[in-house]
Amino acid sequence: MEINVLAKNDAIARDNRAWLRRRDVLALNLMSSPGSGKTTLLERTLSQLPGPVAVIEGDQETSLDASRIRRTGAPVVQVNTGAGCHLDASLVASALSSLAPPPGSVVFVENVGNLVCPAMFDLGERRKVVVISVTEGTDKPLKYPYMFAAADLVIVNKIDLLPYVDFDVDLCAKHARSVNPDLTVLPLSATTGAGLDAWYAWIAAQ
Amino acid sequence: MEINVLAKNDAIARDNRAWLRRRDVLALNLMSSPGSGKTTLLERTLSQLPGPVAVIEGDQETSLDASRIRRTGAPVVQVNTGAGCHLDASLVASALSSLAPPPGSVVFVENVGNLVCPAMFDLGERRKVVVISVTEGTDKPLKYPYMFAAADLVIVNKIDLLPYVDFDVDLCAKHARSVNPDLTVLPLSATTGAGLDAWYAWIAAQ
Repeated sequence: MEINVLAKNDAIARDNRAWLRRRDVLALNLMSSPGSGKTTLLERTLSQLPGPVAVIEGDQETSLDASRIRRTGAPVVQVNTGAGCHLDASLVASALSSLAPPPGSVVFVENVGNLVCPAMFDLGERRKVVVISVTEGTDKPLKYPYMFAAADLVIVNKIDLLPYVDFDVDLCAKHARSVNPDLTVLPLSATTGAGLDAWYAWIAAQ
Repeated sequence: MEINVLAKNDAIARDNRAWLRRRDVLALNLMSSPGSGKTTLLERTLSQLPGPVAVIEGDQETSLDASRIRRTGAPVVQVNTGAGCHLDASLVASALSSLAPPPGSVVFVENVGNLVCPAMFDLGERRKVVVISVTEGTDKPLKYPYMFAAADLVIVNKIDLLPYVDFDVDLCAKHARSVNPDLTVLPLSATTGAGLDAWYAWIAAQ
């Protein structure tokens, strides 16, 4: 059953990937625990990119995050999963069709806050970005390795809180690379803006 | 399929509940996002309770948390779920059998860090405890309502970080009670010890 669900999802994800490539749209899938700062990072990022942007917001309930994104002026579609614990390729296909992003766009997909299940579901995105915050503990890449194995980039957010918590950025990056040697790790603070230039440069390079 | 999985789980959970009642053992199911401080809270709590205690540790991978708990002297069983995103009643039944807690024990079940999926799976526990931390944002009960609807107690952890983050404890409690009017909400800091007496009193009352 599980294998069938994943196979069906992967087929739709391939269609999404082809659709995005035809239109020259870069899609990035942002995943994290609840409260790691994905929405705050997007609020900062959307105004700083040169080309057109759009956002697909995934949450179990509410359109709170879509409202925050809308205030930046970016087009946004909220997807509510109800009891569901992750976005899937079919939900993203519908949202992309409704957003109709123009060529050269960057589409950010903010997944449901969950460091486990979203790792299994390809959405057709170009890159998977995992956000963790320094309040979550240095050992997270070891305890949730599937997410870090699937990722292309790890953002270590909330570095402005480093003086107040017990967190070792270098050791966390080492743990993450022990799971996935190809990972890029970017420490930053979406609140203060520290480190964001490297994030914008990473997006530009994709 | 999903309904069958849940029905089978619920049947085993009923057996667990009867087993625990026969032995006069109090089981508490602790759930949260990754990094909300469940293990730190347990490290503090285990030495403070008058009777025998034991811990079932759920993680995708590693026995890091079990090692932390073992250093307190409490009996502990680590359950690794691999790609799985939550503990279920069957995993807990095996762990209980291996722990064999004496009458009058408190058994803490630390679920996989995930604010979504564990809400659906009854383990046979007496009470469900949700831990959120002040770094995760005031809106979490609205965005992840299934977890808060299932809970008996919400612990708002890391109140020592309140001066450095944008978090409103009263509003978060109001959001949680809008989902579940019967909730008890306890703000505390597992790091500094602030508020822990109310937590110990809550355990004693169960």
